[in-house]
Amino acid sequence: MSIVVVGSVAYDTVETDHGSVTDALGGSACFFSLAARFFAPVSVVAVVGTDFKPEHQQLLADRNIDLRGLERREGKTFRWHGRYHEDMNRRDTLATDLNVFAEFAPVLLPDQRRADYLFLGNISPRLQQHVLSQVASPKIVAADTMNHWIENERAALMKMLGKLHILMLNDEEVRTLSGEHNLVKAGRAVLKMGPKTVLIKRGEYGVLQFSQESMFAVPAYPLEEVIDPTGAGDTFAGGVMGYLARNRRLNEAALRSAVVYGTVMASFVVERFSLDRLVTLTWEEVDRRYRSFIELTDSQHRRWTSRIRRD
Amino acid sequence: MSIVVVGSVAYDTVETDHGSVTDALGGSACFFSLAARFFAPVSVVAVVGTDFKPEHQQLLADRNIDLRGLERREGKTFRWHGRYHEDMNRRDTLATDLNVFAEFAPVLLPDQRRADYLFLGNISPRLQQHVLSQVASPKIVAADTMNHWIENERAALMKMLGKLHILMLNDEEVRTLSGEHNLVKAGRAVLKMGPKTVLIKRGEYGVLQFSQESMFAVPAYPLEEVIDPTGAGDTFAGGVMGYLARNRRLNEAALRSAVVYGTVMASFVVERFSLDRLVTLTWEEVDRRYRSFIELTDSQHRRWTSRIRRD
Repeated sequence: MSIVVVGSVAYDTVETDHGSVTDALGGSACFFSLAARFFAPVSVVAVVGTDFKPEHQQLLADRNIDLRGLERREGKTFRWHGRYHEDMNRRDTLATDLNVFAEFAPVLLPDQRRADYLFLGNISPRLQQHVLSQVASPKIVAADTMNHWIENERAALMKMLGKLHILMLNDEEVRTLSGEHNLVKAGRAVLKMGPKTVLIKRGEYGVLQFSQESMFAVPAYPLEEVIDPTGAGDTFAGGVMGYLARNRRLNEAALRSAVVYGTVMASFVVERFSLDRLVTLTWEEVDRRYRSFIELTDSQHRRWTSRIRRD
Repeated sequence: MSIVVVGSVAYDTVETDHGSVTDALGGSACFFSLAARFFAPVSVVAVVGTDFKPEHQQLLADRNIDLRGLERREGKTFRWHGRYHEDMNRRDTLATDLNVFAEFAPVLLPDQRRADYLFLGNISPRLQQHVLSQVASPKIVAADTMNHWIENERAALMKMLGKLHILMLNDEEVRTLSGEHNLVKAGRAVLKMGPKTVLIKRGEYGVLQFSQESMFAVPAYPLEEVIDPTGAGDTFAGGVMGYLARNRRLNEAALRSAVVYGTVMASFVVERFSLDRLVTLTWEEVDRRYRSFIELTDSQHRRWTSRIRRD
């Protein structure tokens, strides 16, 4: 039930109204792993430069994240610099330095090629396809993408969509991909492009889940304060894939629980800068907030009953 | 279990990307009544001019809405003219002609003074207070307001808040009233001003419900097309109060069901211009969408069970 994640490991410089951080550990593979590890073993496929700090390597390793697939290349680690607007729903990218990430050509280890669960973080669809082709018979493949790829590598992206169990993207991206402004139309249009399930991430407005047979709408966890939204989407993905890998079955009930766990994990990461909150997070806190979320979204106000299999 | 509603009866001119209507029947009292009448008898307190069309009077009367409290004054009926932006979340008011509504001084009929359920639509807090003082011992009092009153009649509004069981307002209004941008902080701050429950209407993003003991978050019903959002808030209020009047008890479970019925009623009204959809709506359609909504928001993917008392 091990999960393989391919994505970025980055140093982020982030400015919000609450302050800023410089060269903080980030990147999709880090946020994803630190969330997914609560549910199942995670193995990373990523690249860093020679400037990647040993304490960061240690931080991930200490949390049982398998880093044998973390390639170290001559050069600098990927860097991103962004600034959030006051309402935290919008941000400006001030700088993106791909550095060693520009030549990333992931080659999976023999055991990674036998993975049952694969998450293709937001990298070029050609690289996603390259990774996917190395995995023999995955049970669940999920992917993220962004407007840059939708606009510039649409053909490669479209070719990959049919191989996905789950495509996760935000409201802006699903609109770009589908050409539909309305999210219900957009979600259904993207379903027809191949993925079995489409998850539309709406930030503070929650998630819409589309499958052939059904739709699921869930609000975000209402928070009193959002410090830094960076990585919320990848953290959500970590909760979703983590739960599915632990649960092993991919049906509507499992997907819904997975989306709630993803929502819960994302609600933690935005409480602090960078991935700080995920580092101190305990399973007891996750479990408590999951229960609290079920209660606060239950329109029938029933007593809460656990569904998670603790195997 | 009869509901008294005080509010506006208006002729609306509305422009959206889907077209426009001129002098269509509208106003908070109309939207509210046409939703609430599915659950309980409704009695209107409002004013119209001599231009109010007999067919509109008939339309409401035919749907069992008690119009004995609809005063007819020399002059023209209240008129509103608005234009929605492409995304339907924002609108510009192009004209507001209060006409006879400017001198509205509601006097309730003897039986209205014995009402158990009272909805104070969006009129000046002083008028709301004036109406409230005429009702002997209401079981549930709910009110709506808007930024204009929050900014210009704050003292009168604050005085009334302590007498409310439910205050309904949108995200912008709750921010103005509380001075807090974050909706959780804003909702809790407004709770301290007096109302037992605060409902924050977020349009296509759903509703947040705050009470002393608990919080409830629910998404909007995902629609493929929104034609005209006018009246959605009052229609929501009609569903909420209608359900509570029928259910008779005001506890957390009843409030949550009421919010879902409000959400369902609002999801219908935006499907057509003005109140057209409410006019053709049947209870079977309401019931079907209620079930569908419970299913599509149930994170535990349980079988649906009815809770509504059909008394």
